[in-house]
Amino acid sequence: MAKHPKVPEATIKRLSIYMRVLKDLEKKGVEVISSAELADICGVNAAQIRKDLTYFGEFGIRGVGYYVKELHFDIRKVLGLNQRRNVALVGVGNLGRALASYRNFSDHGYNFVAAFDVDPKKVDAVLPGGVPVYPMEEMGRVAAEKGIEIAIVTTPAETAQAAVDAVVRAGIKGVLNFAPTQVQVPDGVKVKKVDLTTEFDNLVYHLYARSR
Amino acid sequence: MAKHPKVPEATIKRLSIYMRVLKDLEKKGVEVISSAELADICGVNAAQIRKDLTYFGEFGIRGVGYYVKELHFDIRKVLGLNQRRNVALVGVGNLGRALASYRNFSDHGYNFVAAFDVDPKKVDAVLPGGVPVYPMEEMGRVAAEKGIEIAIVTTPAETAQAAVDAVVRAGIKGVLNFAPTQVQVPDGVKVKKVDLTTEFDNLVYHLYARSR
Repeated sequence: MAKHPKVPEATIKRLSIYMRVLKDLEKKGVEVISSAELADICGVNAAQIRKDLTYFGEFGIRGVGYYVKELHFDIRKVLGLNQRRNVALVGVGNLGRALASYRNFSDHGYNFVAAFDVDPKKVDAVLPGGVPVYPMEEMGRVAAEKGIEIAIVTTPAETAQAAVDAVVRAGIKGVLNFAPTQVQVPDGVKVKKVDLTTEFDNLVYHLYARSR
Repeated sequence: MAKHPKVPEATIKRLSIYMRVLKDLEKKGVEVISSAELADICGVNAAQIRKDLTYFGEFGIRGVGYYVKELHFDIRKVLGLNQRRNVALVGVGNLGRALASYRNFSDHGYNFVAAFDVDPKKVDAVLPGGVPVYPMEEMGRVAAEKGIEIAIVTTPAETAQAAVDAVVRAGIKGVLNFAPTQVQVPDGVKVKKVDLTTEFDNLVYHLYARSR
């Protein structure tokens, strides 16, 4: 596939949903699905699905629908999700423990292989899910040995930048930042801020916005 | 303001970001901001901001920009966020504890006022943040007394539907479902599923998708 134009964020998010639905369909033994049925399960309209998929080339057969297994495989490849990724947790609090034990991540190809904390009392423990906790100073060595590609930062806001700096020094190129603050990274490192309050806001909008 | 056409989900999400940025600007004493500056801070382009705001009427002054305080107030009102909301946690595990103690929620107008669990050993405890834990059977009474409008479901997948059924019986109209499963609700109740794995997928796409 050739280089393609910038794909809108909303499309990427929907592709992630399509992929998950297709995975379930594949497990259930469904071989072909119409764009109308797929749209219905994904909660979008069929025109949207067709439009989203055009960013990546030709999928599906007019009048028939999509081959489930093939489309699932192709979307995974397009999204870079056709291999498992090793993930580290940075900051071992309640949220960190919850994420490390959330089996859905493993089902979707993310292996939590290590955790790091500044607190000596938390180091050398093993989190639910069997994740060992190391001191921050060992991040470079552990990241190299375990092939860690993504760091999940769940520190308090005050220490998030220091944690991210350590992640960058350790050669990890992807950061999911759950700390409630913006962090800076150099070119070549990607950071994505996860703000759970936007989920609340979105729900409240649908419940209460005065003009609906 | 009159009824308006259906606002795309992506717009709602961006409005939530604009609102947060405007709140920070207001705190810093900024009175007016150009759409180019606002766009830059929010990480979108200026045309996108102008387009997003047209769904709701006329904001801003051509050639000047936006009045920070006024725009912040108007977006909050449009999103239904101009009052605080009382929130209950259903399922007291690591994730529930993490959410209850996440002070960002309180800063954004969400008060965790109660938690519920089926496990008698967890009942009568007080979570970080001072949230009392009640047995599931008391949800109806407590929800009415405390004016709970939103339930955050953080049970395992297997018990999520039973938890949501209890929420519905208690008269709570909004559900944020963190359990890794789909749940059913009757008309008049809104449920929003929060799937943290989509955040990982999105990061991985930006890191590794082969065509970028």
